[in-house]
Amino acid sequence: AHTYRITLLPGDGIGPEIITVAVDVLKVIAGQFDISINFTEAPIGGAAIDATGNPLPDDSLKTCQDSDAVLLAAIGGYKWDNLPRHQRPETGLLGLRAGLGLFANLRPAKILPQLIDASSLKREIVEGVDIMVVRELTGGIYFGQPKGIFTTETGEKRGVNTMAYTEGEIDRIGRVAFETARKRGGKLCSVDKANVLEVSQLWRDRITNLASEYPDIELSHLYVDNAAMQLVRAPKQFDTIVTGNLFGDILSDAAAMLTGSIGMLPSASLGENSPGVFEPVHGSAPDIAGEDKANPLAQVLSGAMMLRYGLNQPQAAERIEQAVLMVLDKGYRTGDIMSPGMTQLGCRAMGEALIEAI
Amino acid sequence: AHTYRITLLPGDGIGPEIITVAVDVLKVIAGQFDISINFTEAPIGGAAIDATGNPLPDDSLKTCQDSDAVLLAAIGGYKWDNLPRHQRPETGLLGLRAGLGLFANLRPAKILPQLIDASSLKREIVEGVDIMVVRELTGGIYFGQPKGIFTTETGEKRGVNTMAYTEGEIDRIGRVAFETARKRGGKLCSVDKANVLEVSQLWRDRITNLASEYPDIELSHLYVDNAAMQLVRAPKQFDTIVTGNLFGDILSDAAAMLTGSIGMLPSASLGENSPGVFEPVHGSAPDIAGEDKANPLAQVLSGAMMLRYGLNQPQAAERIEQAVLMVLDKGYRTGDIMSPGMTQLGCRAMGEALIEAI
Ligand SMILES: CC(C)[C@H](C(=O)O)[C@@H](O)C(=O)O
Ligand SMILES: CC(C)[C@H](C(=O)O)[C@@H](O)C(=O)O
Repeated sequence: AHTYRITLLPGDGIGPEIITVAVDVLKVIAGQFDISINFTEAPIGGAAIDATGNPLPDDSLKTCQDSDAVLLAAIGGYKWDNLPRHQRPETGLLGLRAGLGLFANLRPAKILPQLIDASSLKREIVEGVDIMVVRELTGGIYFGQPKGIFTTETGEKRGVNTMAYTEGEIDRIGRVAFETARKRGGKLCSVDKANVLEVSQLWRDRITNLASEYPDIELSHLYVDNAAMQLVRAPKQFDTIVTGNLFGDILSDAAAMLTGSIGMLPSASLGENSPGVFEPVHGSAPDIAGEDKANPLAQVLSGAMMLRYGLNQPQAAERIEQAVLMVLDKGYRTGDIMSPGMTQLGCRAMGEALIEAI
Repeated sequence: AHTYRITLLPGDGIGPEIITVAVDVLKVIAGQFDISINFTEAPIGGAAIDATGNPLPDDSLKTCQDSDAVLLAAIGGYKWDNLPRHQRPETGLLGLRAGLGLFANLRPAKILPQLIDASSLKREIVEGVDIMVVRELTGGIYFGQPKGIFTTETGEKRGVNTMAYTEGEIDRIGRVAFETARKRGGKLCSVDKANVLEVSQLWRDRITNLASEYPDIELSHLYVDNAAMQLVRAPKQFDTIVTGNLFGDILSDAAAMLTGSIGMLPSASLGENSPGVFEPVHGSAPDIAGEDKANPLAQVLSGAMMLRYGLNQPQAAERIEQAVLMVLDKGYRTGDIMSPGMTQLGCRAMGEALIEAI
């Protein structure tokens, strides 16, 4: 049996509750697939600030670096919103991405037939939507220098951030995107603002160049404003989308919300020779933390993504994904996806239903 | 009778057709309200590139500067997409904004009951949506220095743009937004990415400070990714939104698309002591140019915004807006907003129907 070392980062809010469910599910799956998993827990985000003053303690990063994959729940909460930047939960998350070199963020937005009525869009518009956003995650305006708040000659303050990409950074994420499109519908849409931004012009040139290496992939380009419109107007036109860090942040959330149920969506952040980080798209929901109300399914599906992309165990991943569809088919729902005629379950009970389905 | 000097910038694609309709409507309105308007036409965008090699000839900018307001149609088209940046239609538009100091872009997204079924969102989600996006238009990453494509020490190319705002720039647009909210529903939502970007942190601090001068306005803040989600999920929560140039570009288009009929949406770009520019939200639609198929209503409504915000003639503006609702009530539709049982009209015929309604 292959033994994997998994670092668990429960984080804040509902994080600990939902990650417990995911671990229970992974243990059952491990038994079935003759895999052995060693779990190590480490603090990040607000929990780490409270314990150590640092949202990403060196020990936590080291533990992640020494593992085969990282399962993250969610970070942040009102409590830490007014701390200085270097002490905020988000800074821990950005440090984790940089520290592990996680340059590729895969964010699926797939409509589940069982939950289609949760969408704010008309059924015929979203039926069958299955989009993968490939977002660059360690470059762009999130990390570009110079940045800061400076005082000008006149004594006025000026806030500055830099959106920058090198050819190498663009090619690297571009290849991931073309490869991803190849395993999916064979269509790739690159999103930029090349009619205004020079950094986008370089982006578009490099992605266009790369296309010659992937003649089987149908490449298109959209400006980011138009992409936001098209996602709302006719999301089925998209298969795989590739874009920079900031545009990816915005568009992947917009795409996620098309499904109407972000409590269902996992994500993967991958590097070159480092463990990937797998986490739900939703936040830490501090308002319902500790009340056994959270939806653990995105976290469980993040575990499935971990098996597929992080540990190369696609069959185990599939079994989890099937189990999620089965509990939905049985009519089980957490509060966030509840609808008339269904059976409402708490977080723990949903975990038990999943394990039964497996 | 007051005499106004209006510069017409027909631009490209369907621009000349739709601006002709707007001018006809404005002439009739002028007669009714004892206003006199002198129209002067000037080239911009692709048309100006073809004529002079420059997307904003000095003479065109000068003509605009010497007028009371500018009515712009639309610019751009495939034909000019591969020219170098300084020769592209968009560069002419950015030059116009900078040249006239148009720092405030007002972009309404209002659902018309007659066209509600055109929306890709469910009726109950969009019914009554009435959002005004106040977008900063002469700062941020659109104009920040340094920008360009540079060669690094290793010989690799690096694309760079700078997102920057000074306190003064933020306060200036902030005041416009608070004043706008005051004339509307009294709610202002400021959108930024203050959890990651220093420029957004300064933005949030200044907007928060300004709020003390507007105790009657209910101020909230959202991160841009969450704002994109909330627009899709529950757009009725928004009244007035204020944000920077890039986020405003994306969110105003997403908000526009919620209505399902961007052929109906006007916009205003305003400066301090300069003529405003009024233009439809939609593009130049080169594929249907010259075929008398275009929807002139957004252009006509841009004329109404010009009367209201540019010439301080709110009653004349209202008469135009009423006429637009009347032709819709009569069942007249252009192709882009056509639905079963309605009467389809071309661009010119829609103009005639409007004039009859006035
Ligand atoms: C929490 C925040 C820093 C983060 C981001 O902007 O990347 C989040 O929005 C995400 O998309 O993972
Ligand atoms: C054409 C382009 C430069 C422009 C912009 O990005 O501002 C357009 O998208 C707009 O919103 O007016």
